[in-house]
Amino acid sequence: MNNWLPSSIYLALLHHPVKNKNGETIASAVTNLDLHDLSRVAKTYGVTAVYVITPLADQQALVRKIISHWREGYGAAYNPKRGEALDLVRVAESLAAAVDEIGSLEPERPVRKIATGAMQNDGVISFSALRRKLNSEAAAFLLMLGTAWGLTDDIIAEADYALEPIQGNTGYNHLPVRAAAAIILDRVLGTE
Amino acid sequence: MNNWLPSSIYLALLHHPVKNKNGETIASAVTNLDLHDLSRVAKTYGVTAVYVITPLADQQALVRKIISHWREGYGAAYNPKRGEALDLVRVAESLAAAVDEIGSLEPERPVRKIATGAMQNDGVISFSALRRKLNSEAAAFLLMLGTAWGLTDDIIAEADYALEPIQGNTGYNHLPVRAAAAIILDRVLGTE
Repeated sequence: MNNWLPSSIYLALLHHPVKNKNGETIASAVTNLDLHDLSRVAKTYGVTAVYVITPLADQQALVRKIISHWREGYGAAYNPKRGEALDLVRVAESLAAAVDEIGSLEPERPVRKIATGAMQNDGVISFSALRRKLNSEAAAFLLMLGTAWGLTDDIIAEADYALEPIQGNTGYNHLPVRAAAAIILDRVLGTE
Repeated sequence: MNNWLPSSIYLALLHHPVKNKNGETIASAVTNLDLHDLSRVAKTYGVTAVYVITPLADQQALVRKIISHWREGYGAAYNPKRGEALDLVRVAESLAAAVDEIGSLEPERPVRKIATGAMQNDGVISFSALRRKLNSEAAAFLLMLGTAWGLTDDIIAEADYALEPIQGNTGYNHLPVRAAAAIILDRVLGTE
């Protein structure tokens, strides 16, 4: 949890509903390294919690097993810094459940959902505008990241904001979700 | 390869010599996702090549097998964008071999080695100063990233520059090498 901003920031890593390469809605599998990378980046930048969202019970159990290994199992002794980061990870069966939980944790702050992705949408919010909001609004901002081929149109449509895509220098726009999360948090929360 | 800068930029992901958690010099194992993440980030930002450095023959073979799967095997048909990024990956048995290869590819440009890591060193170069160098010097800049617990002191000492560490907002400085690479390239090459 940060204590230098009026806002709080959460990440949501969606495994459902997301798109496959044909644009169909699917539930993707949890990737072990996503949990490590997102939680360590989140811990670095002062994110309050990272919601791993999947409706599949076996996938929820897998996430809990990974967290437990690094918080209480062999991994906790081998590398305590990983468990410290994984402390930020929460499992939710749906985006709505995550939003409800944030609302109950922070009843005084409205939850603002921010869609991220490689696609350019009309009316996107810029990185600098989001940075200003984080520094001025007493809200809980939930940055939604899609696995597989990204968030579905419905999720983007029901978001409060869609964040502008990360543009590199080459026209290639296929960043891993792990890299996108790192760059987004650095752009909106980083200090150089 | 970029064509909008006087410089060219390379990444080197070192698996030897790097430190283990006790500060001893080791050879670490290649991580599949490192290759994907670093090459996709490199492709996004116009990096010329990504050197995966390991003296171990079986690890070199593993890297070549992964690249081949995504460039020519089943993966190439399933997701051609991954092979496009992995085209940037080169295998080298040592840092010196990578530097030699860059020197022969670009004989007109001196190679400048830049150490990266979480440790604060005396005389580090700032992100903004490195960005200015990339925009003004006709050199081949090689950003060296350490796996495991980071680059050895010898590698840092023989670098032309040591890049300032990425500071988050919390004092937690255990970013995955994949996240660090993404943030560094965005800071020195990104356009918002």
